[in-house]
Parts: sequence; C-alpha cells; structure tokens
Amino acid sequence: MAKRSWIWSVTIWWLLFSAAVLVQSSDLPREVDLLLTGGTVVTVDTSGRVITDGAVAIDGSVIVAVGSSAEVASAVNAIEIVDTSGQIVMPGLVNTHTHAPMVMYRGLADDLALMEWLEQYIFPAEAKTVTPEFVRVGAALAALEMIRSGTTTFVDMYYFEEVIAEVVLEAGLRAVLGQTIIEFPAPDAAVPDVALARAEAFVQAWRGHERINPAVAPHAMYTLDENNLVAARNLALRYEVPILIHLAETENELSIAREQYGLTPTGYLESIGFLGSSVVAAHGVWVSGADIEILKRHGVGVSHNPESNMKLASGVAPVSRYLAAGVDLGLGTDGAASNNDLDMFEAMRMASLLHKLHERNPRAVSAKTSLEMATIGGARAIGLGDEVGSLEPGKCADLIIVSMAAPRQTPLYDPISHLVYTTRGDDVRMTIVHGRILMRDGRVLTLDETMILEEARQLAMKVSDAVP
Amino acid sequence: MAKRSWIWSVTIWWLLFSAAVLVQSSDLPREVDLLLTGGTVVTVDTSGRVITDGAVAIDGSVIVAVGSSAEVASAVNAIEIVDTSGQIVMPGLVNTHTHAPMVMYRGLADDLALMEWLEQYIFPAEAKTVTPEFVRVGAALAALEMIRSGTTTFVDMYYFEEVIAEVVLEAGLRAVLGQTIIEFPAPDAAVPDVALARAEAFVQAWRGHERINPAVAPHAMYTLDENNLVAARNLALRYEVPILIHLAETENELSIAREQYGLTPTGYLESIGFLGSSVVAAHGVWVSGADIEILKRHGVGVSHNPESNMKLASGVAPVSRYLAAGVDLGLGTDGAASNNDLDMFEAMRMASLLHKLHERNPRAVSAKTSLEMATIGGARAIGLGDEVGSLEPGKCADLIIVSMAAPRQTPLYDPISHLVYTTRGDDVRMTIVHGRILMRDGRVLTLDETMILEEARQLAMKVSDAVP
Repeated sequence: MAKRSWIWSVTIWWLLFSAAVLVQSSDLPREVDLLLTGGTVVTVDTSGRVITDGAVAIDGSVIVAVGSSAEVASAVNAIEIVDTSGQIVMPGLVNTHTHAPMVMYRGLADDLALMEWLEQYIFPAEAKTVTPEFVRVGAALAALEMIRSGTTTFVDMYYFEEVIAEVVLEAGLRAVLGQTIIEFPAPDAAVPDVALARAEAFVQAWRGHERINPAVAPHAMYTLDENNLVAARNLALRYEVPILIHLAETENELSIAREQYGLTPTGYLESIGFLGSSVVAAHGVWVSGADIEILKRHGVGVSHNPESNMKLASGVAPVSRYLAAGVDLGLGTDGAASNNDLDMFEAMRMASLLHKLHERNPRAVSAKTSLEMATIGGARAIGLGDEVGSLEPGKCADLIIVSMAAPRQTPLYDPISHLVYTTRGDDVRMTIVHGRILMRDGRVLTLDETMILEEARQLAMKVSDAVP
Repeated sequence: MAKRSWIWSVTIWWLLFSAAVLVQSSDLPREVDLLLTGGTVVTVDTSGRVITDGAVAIDGSVIVAVGSSAEVASAVNAIEIVDTSGQIVMPGLVNTHTHAPMVMYRGLADDLALMEWLEQYIFPAEAKTVTPEFVRVGAALAALEMIRSGTTTFVDMYYFEEVIAEVVLEAGLRAVLGQTIIEFPAPDAAVPDVALARAEAFVQAWRGHERINPAVAPHAMYTLDENNLVAARNLALRYEVPILIHLAETENELSIAREQYGLTPTGYLESIGFLGSSVVAAHGVWVSGADIEILKRHGVGVSHNPESNMKLASGVAPVSRYLAAGVDLGLGTDGAASNNDLDMFEAMRMASLLHKLHERNPRAVSAKTSLEMATIGGARAIGLGDEVGSLEPGKCADLIIVSMAAPRQTPLYDPISHLVYTTRGDDVRMTIVHGRILMRDGRVLTLDETMILEEARQLAMKVSDAVP
C-alpha cells in the first residue's frame, strides 16, 4: 500500500509537471525574424488552403508557422512585422525553363520561322556576343526581372553558367543552373568534351550550396550523339545533380528521331538509358500517350512553356494528359528571346487560356491548376518539392506578396482567379527567398537596378551590330 | 518687247512675293496647346512611320503636327511641353467590343462551360444586381481601367447605356455605346419593344456628340427574331448610327442558324438585309470563306476577341483570312467577366501568339499586325477611321504615352515588338482623348479612383449574395 501510494505520488507529480511545461512552452511565443500578417494567404498546400486574414512566420531561412493571423500572432514574437492587409501572400513562382542571359536578345527578331530566327539572328548573335561579361549582365537583368515579377526559383540552361551562379548568389534567388553541352562549337566550349569538363568543374564548385543547385544540361537529343548524351547523364548521376534537356519541342525533332532511330524523342532517350527522376524535360510538346507513360514511369519532370510554344508555333503540349497521368508538371517562360519576358503570371494565364481553347473545354486547366503548376508542380518537377513551392512550416521561406489594389483587380471574389487572370508580375510588392527580402515595396534590394539597365543598354549596341 | 518685259516683271514680282509669304508663314510658329517631344512616335499611319526623337503637337482637340522633334518644335509654339524621352507616343487603343459594367463580375465564376457560366452565374447575377447604380459604378470602374491601360475609344453593349454615356462624358473617353435589344426580359426592358424605344431615345439624346456615339445593339441572331433584328437595323439606319451585334461566336450559334434557317449566322443576317457598313460584328469565329466575303462585301467591321474566345473555349477566328480579304478588323477584350480585364495590350499579345500557333506559322499576325488591329484597324471597323486610330495631322488628339523603362522592356531593339510582346497596360503613363489629358504620370484626373474602387467593393457584396 505504501509502495503503491509512492508510485501514485510520483506519477501525479510527473503528469502535473509535464502539463505545466507543455502549457508554458505552447504559451511562450517563439522568437522569429519576420511575421507577415493580415493578408490572404494562398498556401498551395495539399489541401489548397486559402486563409483570409492569414499569417506566415519566418525564422532564418525557414517558414515556421502558417495560419490565421490571430493563431500565428499568439505563437510567435517577431522582430519584424509586415502588414499584408489587402494583399496576397503566396509561394514564390518556380520558372522551370529559361535561358536567363537571352533577355539581351528580347525583341531582337520576332515573327520569324524557328530556323530563320535561330540561324539568321540568335546563333550569329550568340557567336559574336556571348562572353562572360555578356552572361553576367544578361543574368543580372534577368534576375532583376524575376525578382520584380515574383519568381523565386528558376531553372537555367546556358553557357558560362558559373557566371550566372555568381549573379544568382548576389541576387539572392534560388536556381537550378545547367551548364550546356551541345555538339556544335559553343561560346564557352569548342567541343562537347570541353563542355562536359566545364560542367563537371561547375558541379564540383557549387554542389551542396543552399540556394544554387548545379546541373548538367545536354541541349537536346538532336544536338548531341548517344555518347555525349550518356556521358552527360553519367556525370549528373555521379554527382547526384539534375539533368536538364529540351525534349520533343518541335515536330522537326520528332521527324529527326523517327528517321534516325525509328523512335520518338522520348522513346529514344529511354532506349539509351537516359531517363530518370533527376531529368527535367523542357517543352514535351510532341509526345504520344506511350511517351507520357514513359516519362511518368521514370519520374521525369516536365516543363510546359505555353508562350514560347505559341510564339514559335511549336505546338501544344498535352497538359491535361500529363496531369491525368500524374507527371510532375511545371511552367516555364523559356528564354526571353522567344517570349519576350520572364513573367510567370503571364505563363499561368496563357496556360489556362490556351488549353481551354485547345481542348474546347472551358473547364480545362483551371486557375487553380495553373497556379499549382507555377508553384508546387514546378518544384516537384525539378526535385525541390520538399523545399519550396508551397507555404508550409518547415519549407524554405520563398514567398511573395502580391498587391490586389489595381482597378483591374477590383472587385475581388476569388484570389486564385485574380492571380491567374488579372494579375501581372508588376503587382508583386515583396519577394523573399530563403528568408531574405530581395525586394521590398517594389524596390530590389540586392542588385543595382540603374547600373544593370545601363550596362544592358550599352551591351545591346554590340548585339545590334552582330545581326543583319 | 515692252509687253513681254512687263509680263516678266509681274511674274518675277509675284514669285518673290509668294515665296516671301510662304517662307514667313512656315517660319511663324503656330500657337498650340500641347507639344509631346523627344519620344519615339509610333504613328500607325499608312506608311507605318516610327519616328525616333519625334514629336506630336496638339491644338484643342486635334493633332496639328507629327514629325521629328526638331521639325515640329520649329513649327509650333506650345503652351505646355511634355518631354517624352525614353517613352513611346502612340495612338490610343480602340477596344471594339466590351460590356463595361461587367467588370463587376470579373472572377465571379471562372473555368466553367459557357452555358453553365451564363445560366448559373451571369444571368442570375444580372437579374438581381443590374440597376442604373450598378451600371454607373461598373462603367466608372471600367473607365478607370481603360484610361489606365491606354484605351481611348471603346465599343460597348449593355443595359442602361444612357448611364454609361454620362460616365463616359465625365471620364473623358470616346465611345460607341450600344443600347442592347434582346428577346428575353432584360434589366432595363421587359420586352424588345421597350428596348427599341429606349434605344431610340438614347440615340436621339446623344447623336452628334463629339465623343459619344450612340448605337443600337441587337444582341445576336439567336436571341432576337427577324422582326426585332430588322427593327433594330432600321432604327440605326434612320438615325445613321452604328449597329453592334454578336456574330458567330460559338459553334452552338452556328448550329442554331443551320437548324432554323439552313444558313450560317452571317448568311442569315445577310438574307434578312441586316448587313451593311454600319454593322460591327463581335467575334466572327464560326465563319466560312463565303461568310468572310459577305462581310467584306457589305463593309461590316469585325471585332476579334482572342482572350474571351480562348477562356470560353469558343474557337479561333480566322484572323489572317479576314485580313487577306480586306475586312476591317479590330481587337476587343469582351466583358471582363470572360477575360478578366480590359487590357488591350494583352489582347494584342494574345492575338499574335494565338494565331502563330493556330496557323502553325510563327510569321502569322506579326506584332505590327496586332498593333494595327488594336488602333487603326479597330477605328475603321467601327467607322471612326478618319477620326482616330493613328497619329496624323487633322485627326482627333487621342493618344497615349507608354513607358519603356522596365527591366522586362530592356534592352529595346524594336518599339513595336516591345509594345506587343512585353508591355502591359500599366506601362501607360499619360492618356489623352480629344486633346484632354485624362491621366498624367499614372494618375487619373477625371475620375475619383478611391471612391470608385470603394463603391465597387461595396456593390460586390450584393453580387456575391446573388449567386450560389
């Protein structure tokens, strides 16, 4: 009996003590760096939660709380509080395919056939103008544009990617940067072997960085032979980094694959063991049902680029079929030379409008679907689905604050409709990546905008001289 | 000999005198109200002239000079000079089809099938909420948005059009306003006879106004019987005002026309003597080659609405075929409920991208073509081609100044490419209609923006209550 009462005393004492500690710790507001409160929080989480009068708390580089303003305010003690009333707080946009420095060629040559455009303008311009300095200025200009328009993560394929990495480091963005490997002489590598060696050095230099994910970017199945495709693939596998490739962009590519290998471009890449979950395939327009299954089976992420596909008249990617098959699908702008900007809000709007028309179904690719593709879908497609793409505790603090005050956004019935159908990149007021504020009240803090614009204008004169 | 020398003297004297007068008069600077100087002037005149370091002089409501800054500066003496360096001066945009007050329904119901959208949302909302007050607030909100995004002339079809006219009068815009006639009970007329009477009163009240062109707007061939279509047509002819009608928007309309009359919608309207040069037909998607010839033969103007046709999955208007046939073709946004905004820069971009893809030809519908449709093409389609749509001496001073300073507009190789592919309505800095500055440095001068936005938000609560 005495023994029993001793056990009871200890048990009761322990329970009371634990309860007190638990109550105290839940009552004790956690110290955090930043609290965004009072706005409409569009989480794009698995339940698609939209929180009116919501809040997001950020500590260091991480989101630590998402909920109603009252809930979150009682749980945290913030060093800085930003009132987001009347605005939308949402995940930063993920641009799954671009060639950042090509902003230097935007509007240089439009309304031309693809080969004419490439052969008479883009290739000569690239041969004569792409230098590390050109890439630095172009990437900085692109970074400015992306920060301004709410892109927080982008996937790049270009030359001198190590220069782009330095710009991204300074700009504060998150990126997957693929050093290009291509058969013909490129500005930074005369032959593929040199490109492969450059890619390896680039990957070694940046692997493990918290924001910059180096990658290997074999250009396409029609611009590289099997040996080089496999070499690029093996290099990426060895270092466990992503592989970026253009895939099935044009009908011409499909013809080449059929003539040379008797396969579709997708079928060919599978046949040489190229495909896997670290592959991000840009475009994926000319794919069969079987191709979609192949891409799904190998866990390949796909980047849909509606504006580029329209402007270059490439064709229409089967977006609803990709989604139905469960392929991880993101949106991209492609390079600004074929867009002509890097505004992911435009990409969302275009995706919804294009596929409704193409499928002759106004219910197709809803605003919600486009928003998902531009955020969590893209994040998953590029292997960052656990880090970014939605507002959830534990994820990286990559988010944007979007104004809803314009006459064209008034009245506001449905925030997601407005984000897709009436919002522009210019409506973004604040951009945060990895917990760092890159733009505040429309002013970019990490880059010298005036200087970059001036440098771009100076460089543009050389570009003008390089084309007919 | 003496006779001859006398003739010579008089001749020489007369030539010297005339020359002196001419030199003096061309040297004497003309007094004008406003000089825009130093910018890139995109005239959209018949030669497509783009003047670097150009100027436009405005006196009263009229453009009096267009040329190089040096040329124009020496010819005029301006009360006010606006430096437009680094910006584009261009004709105001002509929105050839909208339903202005429907901005109140933007984003209310998206991603739905057309009939579901109309029958479950738009018609119930209209039945319960469209009052003169609703129309006043909606039209003011639309006017704000149009002034902000560079539309200077718009074509409207709605109810209580007399209320819209008052708003347009105050806002300072130019408009063609069509009082709607429709078979079923409308918010402002229980039966078509009442609508016809209201239309006549409206036309009588506003005919001859310098900016407001009253019109008659029979809704469509499937929502009116022959008697009412002809009555509307005769009313418009009697007063020599435009006739606005929806035409061949959906495949369903084509089916109805075929079943009921064994004709296309266009063929049917021709068969009842409806068509003529005062008709502006919105959409024109489901037209045959023969229909295009019919429209051309009767001088019908056509309004192409790419975003609405995409969002509602209506189909693709054969734009290149219209243009090849010489039909006067303009661009429109349609109502904001199916767009979801009134930004004509978006309409231009969408027109170019859509038709390149649809025709599988990246040369189709160039930036220049879209710009022409959005300005002079639209002006001609609505019968105002001699008054507006291009910057030429003698035309009404309807023009806009567009910023080119954004990172997404840098560098600038081709102003017309940038206007179509990377410019937004929000880049418009100044809007001038009939010589009056409606917006200066992004601030609307003719309307109380804060009050209108607040009224719209209040009214939106009633709209929310009216739908499921």
